Amino acid sequence: MKKNLSTILLIIFFVFSAIAHYAHLNPILQFIVSAIAVVLVAGFLGRATENVAHYAGQRLGGFLNATFGNAAELIIAIMLLREGLYDMVKASLTGSIIGNLLLVLGLSIFAGGVKFKVQNFNVSLAGMNGSLMIVAVIALFVPALFLNTHSITSTEVDTLSLIVAGLLILAYIAWLIFSMFTHKTYLADVTNEGDDEHESPEWSKGRSILYLIIATVMTAFVSEWLVGTLETFTEDFGFSELFVGAFVVAIIGNAAEHSAAIMLAMKNKIGASVEIAVGSSLQIALFVAPVLIFVSFFLGNTMDIVFTTLELVAIMVSVFIAKSIIQDGSTNWYEGTLLLVVYIILGVSFYLV
Amino acid sequence: MKKNLSTILLIIFFVFSAIAHYAHLNPILQFIVSAIAVVLVAGFLGRATENVAHYAGQRLGGFLNATFGNAAELIIAIMLLREGLYDMVKASLTGSIIGNLLLVLGLSIFAGGVKFKVQNFNVSLAGMNGSLMIVAVIALFVPALFLNTHSITSTEVDTLSLIVAGLLILAYIAWLIFSMFTHKTYLADVTNEGDDEHESPEWSKGRSILYLIIATVMTAFVSEWLVGTLETFTEDFGFSELFVGAFVVAIIGNAAEHSAAIMLAMKNKIGASVEIAVGSSLQIALFVAPVLIFVSFFLGNTMDIVFTTLELVAIMVSVFIAKSIIQDGSTNWYEGTLLLVVYIILGVSFYLV
Amino acid sequence: MKKNLSTILLIIFFVFSAIAHYAHLNPILQFIVSAIAVVLVAGFLGRATENVAHYAGQRLGGFLNATFGNAAELIIAIMLLREGLYDMVKASLTGSIIGNLLLVLGLSIFAGGVKFKVQNFNVSLAGMNGSLMIVAVIALFVPALFLNTHSITSTEVDTLSLIVAGLLILAYIAWLIFSMFTHKTYLADVTNEGDDEHESPEWSKGRSILYLIIATVMTAFVSEWLVGTLETFTEDFGFSELFVGAFVVAIIGNAAEHSAAIMLAMKNKIGASVEIAVGSSLQIALFVAPVLIFVSFFLGNTMDIVFTTLELVAIMVSVFIAKSIIQDGSTNWYEGTLLLVVYIILGVSFYLV
Repeated sequence: MKKNLSTILLIIFFVFSAIAHYAHLNPILQFIVSAIAVVLVAGFLGRATENVAHYAGQRLGGFLNATFGNAAELIIAIMLLREGLYDMVKASLTGSIIGNLLLVLGLSIFAGGVKFKVQNFNVSLAGMNGSLMIVAVIALFVPALFLNTHSITSTEVDTLSLIVAGLLILAYIAWLIFSMFTHKTYLADVTNEGDDEHESPEWSKGRSILYLIIATVMTAFVSEWLVGTLETFTEDFGFSELFVGAFVVAIIGNAAEHSAAIMLAMKNKIGASVEIAVGSSLQIALFVAPVLIFVSFFLGNTMDIVFTTLELVAIMVSVFIAKSIIQDGSTNWYEGTLLLVVYIILGVSFYLV
Repeated sequence: MKKNLSTILLIIFFVFSAIAHYAHLNPILQFIVSAIAVVLVAGFLGRATENVAHYAGQRLGGFLNATFGNAAELIIAIMLLREGLYDMVKASLTGSIIGNLLLVLGLSIFAGGVKFKVQNFNVSLAGMNGSLMIVAVIALFVPALFLNTHSITSTEVDTLSLIVAGLLILAYIAWLIFSMFTHKTYLADVTNEGDDEHESPEWSKGRSILYLIIATVMTAFVSEWLVGTLETFTEDFGFSELFVGAFVVAIIGNAAEHSAAIMLAMKNKIGASVEIAVGSSLQIALFVAPVLIFVSFFLGNTMDIVFTTLELVAIMVSVFIAKSIIQDGSTNWYEGTLLLVVYIILGVSFYLV
Repeated sequence: MKKNLSTILLIIFFVFSAIAHYAHLNPILQFIVSAIAVVLVAGFLGRATENVAHYAGQRLGGFLNATFGNAAELIIAIMLLREGLYDMVKASLTGSIIGNLLLVLGLSIFAGGVKFKVQNFNVSLAGMNGSLMIVAVIALFVPALFLNTHSITSTEVDTLSLIVAGLLILAYIAWLIFSMFTHKTYLADVTNEGDDEHESPEWSKGRSILYLIIATVMTAFVSEWLVGTLETFTEDFGFSELFVGAFVVAIIGNAAEHSAAIMLAMKNKIGASVEIAVGSSLQIALFVAPVLIFVSFFLGNTMDIVFTTLELVAIMVSVFIAKSIIQDGSTNWYEGTLLLVVYIILGVSFYLV
């Protein structure tokens, strides 16, 4: 019943945003309907990925989850790239990273912590996640520093960006091998109370694959429609490109992860919430961002890896507080509160710029 | 006997510093007697708070301790605010934070570590303290960065300062709820050898409350007298406002915490020492500093939350080393030494500016 | 057999590089032969130290290891100091620190991790090492910050440098007392599989001492010959002084540590590898660098402690990632990979400057 409703809503908003786009309706209206459509399509894509993952087995399933999980962000970002909106691409990547590390993780830990006094998860995974986050920060920070303190040519910046991007993609592939093959059990989730549910797939194998393809195509379309409205939208409301990219686009693009992570935390599966929130931000930093640099290179105009100071600092402080909170493999409601406080401080600061 | 002596000394120095102040005696003399009076009054305030806490029960007692513990600093800072000495307020807040995290904590850990090989305390509390310190650093760092890298108006800086201050006060209230109500036992101290003493209160209930009121009023007076001498004092000795605020004022204002924390560490109650030292610095950052921003706002001239680069860096490095040392819930003499080395490096650097 | 071969090679390359130097042969040739000679002599010095350590007992042995372990770097640096090449001294110190923390530690953890799934070592030692690294970073960072943000005279910078250097040497001596006397067993290595080998000394007591003296003298000579070639070398290849100092000199100077640490990791003695890699970088920061500052002071022209921004950031990011990886006292191949990724990012960045 509930699922039928969401399917109907999905179709309605998809069609409605298509009409709004092609009929050049009021831009605010276009923005609103396409934003809702993105959220719904992202949810559909998430469900399709989960179902395919179910049939593909744990290992390949995990990989599919990892690859399709950020499909919406990746497609939105490619649309922005083609429009030459490099600054908004970086702002939305920043927003995805901090949105996952602070908002998604913060709400999950808070919601789970209100229900359960202390929630535990694999402390080795927490440690590895922390180190990966530090590497991601270093990879973004070092090139920015070199550019700001030395007179290096833009060709050199592009070269450095491509090399660092290549290294990050290799590190990400090595991480998939490590976490899905060589050290799968080492990183396995600890058992909390109420963990014993086994969920069966919603759809048949063939239907799951079909839906995955449909969902990906739909995501591409609604993402393009949404991006088309952002410029007018920012002009009308007077928000900075940075704020729109880092908060508006990022929250919409991560809507599916948000709800899934919070639900899991409230079922005492905080390890899965952490994996979604932290894992998703790591994918953005180690895979999506580097891939976009290569995409821009092949489109003929390399996007460099140099983020603005504000973006870098936002990513850095998010990583520091998230690392500090997850590193003992145990969470409580107050730790969720701290993440949300930092998110609001960053949000207000970005809004005021 | 010993207590009578300290009461007599307290009265003598209080009266003496009153005379020195109102009779406009030599400024150096004024500074010395009022500094001694502040130390004695702070000790008296501490004893009165402990006694009231005894009757009020553990929970309310903890809250009173938390609120009155930094009363001396708060009152000194308000006096400085009214004189418009915003830079010295920030310098003294900085000094309180780094003085507690490096000098008080360092001496406690060193003194305790010389007597006991390894001292342990609650590792969950250590982790939470670490995360709170990171949030405090972020709250000070982000606005400073925005101001330094962007042309934002002073009204916007004030708005941002008030919002961040409000968030920190909320975070502090939530911390009190967390640490005193929802997760009291989770953060309870581990038992070390020689922990089994039960101390009975010194005074009756009525007398304790009366003394608390008297001590608070006395603190207000001696603080004002001390602040009045600082300007002349800095001029005569050629010390910078930064050095006086961060080292002289801070050491005097925290004298009571210093001695209490070191005594407790030598009784193998290192958990209590950490709570005083780290807890006190957290109160300064999360409660005293934000309250001062609101006080200045109501006085008609908002003090912003933007500390100087040196102050920020001093706070940041103190937090990093303190977090690194306490995070495993276990200390030894060498860790105390490291904190003191960092304190001396900062002291020499501030002195040379 | 293998040992005879290395002795013969050592003598051949020592003589050859002497000839190349005094006969003013082609500078590239001079560089190559003296670089090989440095590697071989460093290995010989390492073996001699180990043998003397064997007879001197564990405690004095550890101290000798600590002091002679970085003898090659120290002697090279003094040669550079006498030539007035202060920038290259700092670059080579930076390179030694990051080379040990990223390359040596990374290769050891990777090689050990490929053979053994998870390798463990003393978690208290890991924590202490982390805190010491943070103190080293603070000691380098604070003076640099003061110089960059305040107009302080060069005399004040020299004073600050000498004071900080003195504090670091005291901290290092205290660390020796802590780790070799008061808390020796607290920091003892955990037992992994295959740990039970007892190695007997290669040489007699007298011969060991004689070889130690010869090796030190040889190191001094070949270091001087190597340094003499660097200028021409950098000019011909167009490498920056920074890159040569931080990567070429550092890799050559640490060759002995590199091979020893990797061998030990593959024998499942990861604790010893960490001690060599991290211990060696700590010695550079806490002992070698401060000693060089005093040496330059006595030579009449104090080298200040202010490193360039790039060097500081390279050291900082190396410390952050190394601390994050060792702090749980457990390593795996992926953590080694992450260290190597950061090393390559820094290497490429330094190369491009």
